[in-house]
Amino acid sequence: MKYTNLTKEQLKELLDSAKKEYEEIAAKGYKVDIARGKPCNAQAALAYDMLTAPAAEEYPMAYLNYGMPEGIPEMRKLFAQLLGLEPSQVIVGGNSSLNMMYDTVQRAMQFGLLGEKPWNKCEKVRFLCPVPGYDRHFAVTQHFGIDMINVPMDDNGPNMDLVESLVASDESAKGIWCVPKYSNPTGIVYSDEVVARLATMKTAAKDFRIFWDNAYCVHDLTDETVELANIMTIAKKAGNEDRIFEFASTSKITVAGAGVACMGASEANIKDAMSHIFYQTIGNDKVNQYRHFRFLQSVEHIKEIMNAQKAIIKPKFDAIVSTLEESLGDDCDIAQWTNPKGGYFISLDVLDGCASRVAALCKAAGLTLTGAGATYPYGRDDSDKNLRIAPTYTNGEDVSVAAEILVACVKLACLEKLAK
Amino acid sequence: MKYTNLTKEQLKELLDSAKKEYEEIAAKGYKVDIARGKPCNAQAALAYDMLTAPAAEEYPMAYLNYGMPEGIPEMRKLFAQLLGLEPSQVIVGGNSSLNMMYDTVQRAMQFGLLGEKPWNKCEKVRFLCPVPGYDRHFAVTQHFGIDMINVPMDDNGPNMDLVESLVASDESAKGIWCVPKYSNPTGIVYSDEVVARLATMKTAAKDFRIFWDNAYCVHDLTDETVELANIMTIAKKAGNEDRIFEFASTSKITVAGAGVACMGASEANIKDAMSHIFYQTIGNDKVNQYRHFRFLQSVEHIKEIMNAQKAIIKPKFDAIVSTLEESLGDDCDIAQWTNPKGGYFISLDVLDGCASRVAALCKAAGLTLTGAGATYPYGRDDSDKNLRIAPTYTNGEDVSVAAEILVACVKLACLEKLAK
Repeated sequence: MKYTNLTKEQLKELLDSAKKEYEEIAAKGYKVDIARGKPCNAQAALAYDMLTAPAAEEYPMAYLNYGMPEGIPEMRKLFAQLLGLEPSQVIVGGNSSLNMMYDTVQRAMQFGLLGEKPWNKCEKVRFLCPVPGYDRHFAVTQHFGIDMINVPMDDNGPNMDLVESLVASDESAKGIWCVPKYSNPTGIVYSDEVVARLATMKTAAKDFRIFWDNAYCVHDLTDETVELANIMTIAKKAGNEDRIFEFASTSKITVAGAGVACMGASEANIKDAMSHIFYQTIGNDKVNQYRHFRFLQSVEHIKEIMNAQKAIIKPKFDAIVSTLEESLGDDCDIAQWTNPKGGYFISLDVLDGCASRVAALCKAAGLTLTGAGATYPYGRDDSDKNLRIAPTYTNGEDVSVAAEILVACVKLACLEKLAK
Repeated sequence: MKYTNLTKEQLKELLDSAKKEYEEIAAKGYKVDIARGKPCNAQAALAYDMLTAPAAEEYPMAYLNYGMPEGIPEMRKLFAQLLGLEPSQVIVGGNSSLNMMYDTVQRAMQFGLLGEKPWNKCEKVRFLCPVPGYDRHFAVTQHFGIDMINVPMDDNGPNMDLVESLVASDESAKGIWCVPKYSNPTGIVYSDEVVARLATMKTAAKDFRIFWDNAYCVHDLTDETVELANIMTIAKKAGNEDRIFEFASTSKITVAGAGVACMGASEANIKDAMSHIFYQTIGNDKVNQYRHFRFLQSVEHIKEIMNAQKAIIKPKFDAIVSTLEESLGDDCDIAQWTNPKGGYFISLDVLDGCASRVAALCKAAGLTLTGAGATYPYGRDDSDKNLRIAPTYTNGEDVSVAAEILVACVKLACLEKLAK
């Protein structure tokens, strides 16, 4: 039955039973956290062999010493192969790709990019933020006082008409945050057309940059690998290769506590970045880079590892989605959710104005979600409808509990609204 | 004989034989590099056991996952014990303490310290630079456009009369670079009086900071451990605990390519720094931090490791110093050098105006030194007299060759000047 077609009386009845159902669940004293996209212990254990290998004598002595702030050649090459870049277009960093993104924004603020005016000296700096999106991207731009402009996402990526019109005339529009593959949180993959339009569009700012966070480049959840167009190739053809800053890491391939991150960019951008990084560090951890290279070996072997990861986490996504289907499927129209082909999240849209109520109800019943609004700049989801579900970290049993609580809370919050 | 007492004719004779001696050495085709303070392969091998331990199953699962940008508790505690701080006063970082220093300066520039005006918004920012000092410190401040003011060093540390007078009235004086123990390059240890005056002096700027790079805190070269006063304790008593930013790392304790760095500061400063670092990174490499904790164990065990390091590198220092003694000792007065009780460098002063000539002659004869002037801000040693010798990386045989070339070049360059 469609809830939105029911009479007030029918809704009141459903609300009463939803209340009862919620109270029963809340009384059970569950404690489950599906807030952050963290790998679970079994995923980390897949990389156990890496932690104690190779033998000490196998490390090139130069990697045990200072130097190479651009990273070791083996990992520059492997990341290049993974991302469709040249090794000379890759800097290999430390554990955190967020760190490389933050530092890239900081360098633009302090020193400017490729000789352009430092963003600190611009009257205004604005970033386009496809929404819903990744909270930690938005937190970085907010931290630097950069204005954020919401751009709605659909199944193909950000609304490109809006993006193009925003960047064409506004010189203060300096960047856009993108998670182009298995997007956080909607799971969509940018269409070829969207990628091409991003790579070729006219921008008023010469130093406009696409922050292309390819965090889930090999993180399939089905047997189908959804292909993402190579934005660097397209941008280069259009003479826009300096527009792209690409990021990736092994955090969700090996271990999140000791991964290796990378930044990909045109050789001019790499040279520009290195002209600052040279002063910033005597070099990142080359032992961990080499350890990764020896463990990961090749793009093919990375895909094998990711298949093993998939086997661990896919059932958790399935558990959430199937419970949502069963309980909130065809019969009612208060919620929509994604069934992603990759990445780390399920995106759940509930009736406008109900997301924060759902999150509060969940919390009171022992289920921690990412706070409502977190997927929007400044934490403000004006429709108050989007919730992000991260099922990977929790064990299988708790995932079922999470789904059960979630459904009860969505029903209750939406019925409260409809029955008003 | 004192060269400076000789007649022109005697000097000409000596110059002729010095030329001959130099030409003979230069013709031998040596190739030796004593430019950078890098550990040698045998030193790195002392940490081989660390590279493959502990067993994967022994890692706390939380350390394999995201989080803890402030570092793991075990390493916060160990660094605190090493530096005489509280664990709550320590942030544990990645591989490079330079990275933590650079980021600290960058945060001060961009955001300001403890609510004070960002240095980017100050009309002028100046740093005091004890000279000779560490080239990479000076490179960081130069990179940010910070004015550098030379402060001469003596055997007790920087000239404190000058330091006190510079910081007392000038609000733009925001910082001082210090390598307080086994200073780079002179090897001296700041006296208790100097430490106390730094900690207690009046500064016009509320946000004046001492960048206390305790890089050689356990890096003795003799059986004597020269004690360095605990600047944080003294500063705290004087109500100046926010003045201190301390840095250290394991780069020269375990391996320089995969060490663990730390920053020590007051709890207020740590909180202030973490309020930015939280946006910058999802966390540093906790696996490497834990690996270090398990390998290093305790301050006592670190000292045992450093004894083994000393056994490897002390003979290299002795080889340089004894050759200098034999060839340029009591008998002539063209050069002075340090015989350090710790650290990584020998500092060599030649006749004014001769250092760059010595470096050029060395280079032509196959010996690479740190460029003359490198130990001064902007690479400018106005007296052109200081050279830094870093004997650790080179093998024993090459160190003897280096000493031989060096002596020949010092003699030739200085005699060229005296015989003019």
